[in-house]
Amino acid sequence: MGQRPFAVFCTALLFAAAGSPALAAPPGSPAAAVNVFIGTGGDGHTFPGASRPFGMVQLSPDTQVRHFRQSYPWAAGYRYEDNSILGFSHTHFSGSGHSDLGDILLMPYSGETKLEPGYPERPFSGYRSRFSHAEERAEPGYYAVRLQDHEVDVELTASGRVGLHRYRYAKGATAKVVLDLRQSIYDYANKNLWSSLRVRDGSTITGMRITRGWAPGRQLYFAMKFSRPIAGRTLLNREEAVEYKGFAGPGKTPADKIHLEGKALVGALEFGVPDDGTLLVKVALSGVSEDGALANLEEMPGWDFDAERQRASSAWNQALSAVAIEAPADMRTMVYTSLYHAMLAPSLFMDRDGKYRGPDNQVHQAQGFRYHSTFSLWDTYRALHPLLTLVQPEQRNADFVNSLVASRQHSPHGILPVWSFHGQETWCMIGYHAVPVIADAYMKGIKGINAEEALAAMTASAEYGPYGGLEHYMKLGYVPIDREPEAASKTVEYAFDDWAIARMAEKMGKKDIAARYYKRAQNYRNVFDTKTGFIRARKTTGEFREPFNPVQSNFGSDYTEGSAWQYSWYMPHDNAGLVSLLGGDAGMAAKIDQVFDAKVEDNVYAHMEDISGLIGHYAHGNEPSHHVAYLYNYAGAPWKTQARVSQIVASQYHNKPDGLAGNDDLGQMSAWLTFTALGFYPVAPGSNEYVIGRPFVDKAVLNLPNGKRFTIRAEGLSAANGFVGSVALNGKALARSFLRHEDIMAGGELLFRMQAAPNKEWGRERSARPYSQTEYQQ
Amino acid sequence: MGQRPFAVFCTALLFAAAGSPALAAPPGSPAAAVNVFIGTGGDGHTFPGASRPFGMVQLSPDTQVRHFRQSYPWAAGYRYEDNSILGFSHTHFSGSGHSDLGDILLMPYSGETKLEPGYPERPFSGYRSRFSHAEERAEPGYYAVRLQDHEVDVELTASGRVGLHRYRYAKGATAKVVLDLRQSIYDYANKNLWSSLRVRDGSTITGMRITRGWAPGRQLYFAMKFSRPIAGRTLLNREEAVEYKGFAGPGKTPADKIHLEGKALVGALEFGVPDDGTLLVKVALSGVSEDGALANLEEMPGWDFDAERQRASSAWNQALSAVAIEAPADMRTMVYTSLYHAMLAPSLFMDRDGKYRGPDNQVHQAQGFRYHSTFSLWDTYRALHPLLTLVQPEQRNADFVNSLVASRQHSPHGILPVWSFHGQETWCMIGYHAVPVIADAYMKGIKGINAEEALAAMTASAEYGPYGGLEHYMKLGYVPIDREPEAASKTVEYAFDDWAIARMAEKMGKKDIAARYYKRAQNYRNVFDTKTGFIRARKTTGEFREPFNPVQSNFGSDYTEGSAWQYSWYMPHDNAGLVSLLGGDAGMAAKIDQVFDAKVEDNVYAHMEDISGLIGHYAHGNEPSHHVAYLYNYAGAPWKTQARVSQIVASQYHNKPDGLAGNDDLGQMSAWLTFTALGFYPVAPGSNEYVIGRPFVDKAVLNLPNGKRFTIRAEGLSAANGFVGSVALNGKALARSFLRHEDIMAGGELLFRMQAAPNKEWGRERSARPYSQTEYQQ
Repeated sequence: MGQRPFAVFCTALLFAAAGSPALAAPPGSPAAAVNVFIGTGGDGHTFPGASRPFGMVQLSPDTQVRHFRQSYPWAAGYRYEDNSILGFSHTHFSGSGHSDLGDILLMPYSGETKLEPGYPERPFSGYRSRFSHAEERAEPGYYAVRLQDHEVDVELTASGRVGLHRYRYAKGATAKVVLDLRQSIYDYANKNLWSSLRVRDGSTITGMRITRGWAPGRQLYFAMKFSRPIAGRTLLNREEAVEYKGFAGPGKTPADKIHLEGKALVGALEFGVPDDGTLLVKVALSGVSEDGALANLEEMPGWDFDAERQRASSAWNQALSAVAIEAPADMRTMVYTSLYHAMLAPSLFMDRDGKYRGPDNQVHQAQGFRYHSTFSLWDTYRALHPLLTLVQPEQRNADFVNSLVASRQHSPHGILPVWSFHGQETWCMIGYHAVPVIADAYMKGIKGINAEEALAAMTASAEYGPYGGLEHYMKLGYVPIDREPEAASKTVEYAFDDWAIARMAEKMGKKDIAARYYKRAQNYRNVFDTKTGFIRARKTTGEFREPFNPVQSNFGSDYTEGSAWQYSWYMPHDNAGLVSLLGGDAGMAAKIDQVFDAKVEDNVYAHMEDISGLIGHYAHGNEPSHHVAYLYNYAGAPWKTQARVSQIVASQYHNKPDGLAGNDDLGQMSAWLTFTALGFYPVAPGSNEYVIGRPFVDKAVLNLPNGKRFTIRAEGLSAANGFVGSVALNGKALARSFLRHEDIMAGGELLFRMQAAPNKEWGRERSARPYSQTEYQQ
Repeated sequence: MGQRPFAVFCTALLFAAAGSPALAAPPGSPAAAVNVFIGTGGDGHTFPGASRPFGMVQLSPDTQVRHFRQSYPWAAGYRYEDNSILGFSHTHFSGSGHSDLGDILLMPYSGETKLEPGYPERPFSGYRSRFSHAEERAEPGYYAVRLQDHEVDVELTASGRVGLHRYRYAKGATAKVVLDLRQSIYDYANKNLWSSLRVRDGSTITGMRITRGWAPGRQLYFAMKFSRPIAGRTLLNREEAVEYKGFAGPGKTPADKIHLEGKALVGALEFGVPDDGTLLVKVALSGVSEDGALANLEEMPGWDFDAERQRASSAWNQALSAVAIEAPADMRTMVYTSLYHAMLAPSLFMDRDGKYRGPDNQVHQAQGFRYHSTFSLWDTYRALHPLLTLVQPEQRNADFVNSLVASRQHSPHGILPVWSFHGQETWCMIGYHAVPVIADAYMKGIKGINAEEALAAMTASAEYGPYGGLEHYMKLGYVPIDREPEAASKTVEYAFDDWAIARMAEKMGKKDIAARYYKRAQNYRNVFDTKTGFIRARKTTGEFREPFNPVQSNFGSDYTEGSAWQYSWYMPHDNAGLVSLLGGDAGMAAKIDQVFDAKVEDNVYAHMEDISGLIGHYAHGNEPSHHVAYLYNYAGAPWKTQARVSQIVASQYHNKPDGLAGNDDLGQMSAWLTFTALGFYPVAPGSNEYVIGRPFVDKAVLNLPNGKRFTIRAEGLSAANGFVGSVALNGKALARSFLRHEDIMAGGELLFRMQAAPNKEWGRERSARPYSQTEYQQ
């Protein structure tokens, strides 16, 4: 799609006549630089719709066809490759692998009422409409498209809890809208457990649905208000073959119904012919109740779409202004888009009155924090949460921690979330990675956290025997593969999480806990096979499982979405230990080289959707690889890190819809690029260190949450100059190949002098290398 | 079954050794006189289990087989004719025609674990067990039975919100319990929309289920605590063929699970071998949440079963002592059993903190009243609610009214309940009969009611066009059969409800409303066909629908569960008007005689389950007939009323399990007998009059809610002396054939002098006759 934010380019002229400014964000501003379509093609699984930073409502077009078994590509509802839109729904994951959501779908239409969506390949077979990217435009907080089949121009914007739609119908056309509670992302038969619709007054509808998707028994409530009175309505329950439906309530026909319950509710609403052709709809969500949704609706009292759009744009500009970037246009767009994608989750999931639904599916009252949910922790503890400690106010980071700790208090199992959204636990992926999120925040001194309760939640999670083989892990020092699948991955990730507990306990002065968990943190060694140089799963009896194949990554293997080549690097808290195990610096560097330089046949990882973005065995599309390029620094060879990140950025990120190498995973892929572009990366969250790579921007100013500024400059940066000649911090040469968190938070300037040839001396000394547990504890 | 409460007789000895007193109620006390098995056979649909008066928990054995289409006979879960018990569940309707409930089923067992209930005809095919009435005993607030197949003695008692079970296992046997969330009354495939189970600690389990039964989307929560630690458990979701279940949570085996969600949850729990062979279980319910249920559990802090049983017995004795009855043993038992059955619904449906779930399926906070639900209004407005104004404290009656008005405020339709339970509307039966309940309470001066809000709710309900053809009724003065089924019945019942509104509005000084509704109250005339002498349905065009057959009562007929013969008496507020229409007193009396004396072939009403208890066309088993025997008084022939009620009581009520002529209908059948036994009946609730029949008890003292006493004495009462010679009120001859509410509330004595021959003069004068609208308004 070329070199510039194509969507803005293509459609600005078309929409200008409609009365909206081409862009709400000022030219040159961070928000104006974002290309929200990056990741909407390929398997990025991002969505182009409208939201506020960390907003509860993420309102976006859905293009998917209704079939669960084909749903992976439509995990965000929308695919850039599609040419028809099903409707606009209010909840989406940004970049998830598995999925759910797509709640409360609205579709404006003209002409004949069709209550089924129809088929993309058969225009006018239902309410679905064709659209063209030439008539589509989006920026942070705003999305617009023309529905060709209905001749309706749609614009979307949002506040935190409210989505706002503006529909412009053809002159003289009756304004009509389908409301389809049957639709979901990752849809399948019987996903809707129950739903209801209630006409509250002449222009307000409330309702709810309970779905059994990725999250079981998830309840979501809504309240929607139209800018014009509902002139006619048809409300139907399209369930078939129900053994018993109960007695019918008042209303003889679908036009008389004001209250419906069932599993397959759909409504068609008519609003007459608006003088100006315009109909607006506000939709508020609540995890608590319809009353909660009605109260949330008050968050957006007026009907001034342009003003709301401007507010959303300003909110994004403010959030994105945490980093002021100077870089070539594509890179600037890619980094701001990454920062944008990094600020969609964890998202607010709390009513205005502080009520929220927790993992026990009960309603709770937040005291002194804002409950957030959508924690894709296996992904986001790595770089997303560390990034947010730099670019978001302390309060937001404290909210995340407090939400995790509150969730643990409500949890039927008494443990921290694993992968949760809308308050509900999905048990997806492995580890107890809420632990490093909390530890990282605590180590960085984030205020507003109850450390005692947090640590109790962390150790409770790490010692909960029934979860993921922990009872065996605690007994044997590793997860045995004959008791628990993916045992090698689990062992090394648990060991890292244990180290994070030890760090926090140590800082809190709890020596016993620290000692106990520092010891557990060395458990990665128990699955390292010195003969092969890989981590491998052991059986309860102690032997490694045979046969062993280092490229095996299928379900049933020793690993989680990975192979031995990918997972054998996972002791980010003790890379010095790994260097020893691999026979020293040279062995370490050589083995990392092997990862990247391997010739890997296409079919080796083809069975795993998530293993994508391959460079040899390195899979940038999935998280286990994310820190690997930075590991050369621990072997005294930062120049190799610099070369590898150049290689990764060039091959894995592009300013185009399929510009992400894999699922964005709720911002982790994007956080990787953001950090990497700045020139450093948090290999071991909780260490308070960032391993230095190389910058990809000429200049970046971090406007830090503490009010200070930290400037990164890359002198002489060009395509030819991809190596770091030297680094200076506040004017003094920096010998070490890592930054400390306090270096950044103190404000100042980090100067990279870029050059064409590698500086193989810088960072070679042992004293220049980042934190590793075994050295720290000597 | 002979002449005494057989259950108490048969089993007292068997259980005496177990440590429980034979009866908790003192000999001779009201509670001791109750035979809770009356109505458990035939189609009475009562249950024998344990509760408190108007209790939220109504804990009772279920014997039904799982099949929706055969469920009518098992509407209360238990049938006296059965010989095996499925388990003990915590919610039951007393005497309903349609049904639901049977929530949270527990079954103690011994030996091998079987998670399916099995089949009555195949002992040991599941957890179901045989039992014998010889080993069964019950009294108000207490039920006991021996499970023969498991060798477990079960005892049940209850507080308002908590059911208490005591299980005694055989010596040396391991105490085991099945908890089956799949079971329901009126069960069918997919009735469970969702459910969950959560082990809270070593002896506590909470959970919930959402069912789609008579009430759609009904949520019920529970908390259960065992007297011993759970030593072993198996928790399973037995769903089959689910397209997507999500990821499994912690716990590899059913024995490790502490949290389960799904549609088919069942658990088996083990408690080791108790020294004394005893295990107790407390189960609290909540319509709000698991936390609500846990808080409700605190209502019963201890484990003293005998003390709880004694408290339940005392509560019943106190409630039943509202009437002190002297009568032959069977009659005394039948009347006290009736009074007992009259105090089961409407039942409490509110947590201890005042929270409850309303008809919008949202949680509300009661302010200054206790929310009650289970309103079988088409039945109970007739005599049950009027009875409760005499035998229950004002606060309870105000609670009913306030619960109805609150429900209207929460109603998606903005109208009063029709047939609701657990806060949810079922839309069962016809009319807006919350109206006469409220009007009757208001006319009687019940305090603690907001009359303005109540009247607003009444008129809103009477003017809600989409409900039951009201838009046509308001336009035409009748419900047209070509627009709305059962139009004749609806017209006459609406007219009565309208009169109740007029009465209340008149007393409130709202002349306009009163005038408008007095006019509507005459609408019964619009469906009276003077040619045939029956009410009939008209079409929109005005003609009566043809062909006409006065015995037709099927679905699709002009009537609701009745024929023209049964429904043509329904203008209880204007029987003088009916007398005119029927050509005067003689015509009226002759036509009532025809009803009773008709020779009706068995097959005429056989297709309608509810039309039972036939005497000619008179169907005592269903409500439209209930006032008919009393109508002779309006024709100046009270002696004929006396003869007919003698005939009805003798043929329709018996002190045996199949001693009710039809469904008790949440106490309406029982309220009829209670009033009739006292010698009067509230033909037109809202009139503040009771039409005098004849007493069936030698003496009854009403201990009135205002602290006064009203004594009824029947001098010379015997089987031979079934006619009233004269009546004296406070020593003065009473010429009128009706009592006024204020006569009773003032305290005093009503003396009937009984004789063998009818006194045809008493009550013959027009001035002696009860209220009729047309005369009142002249």
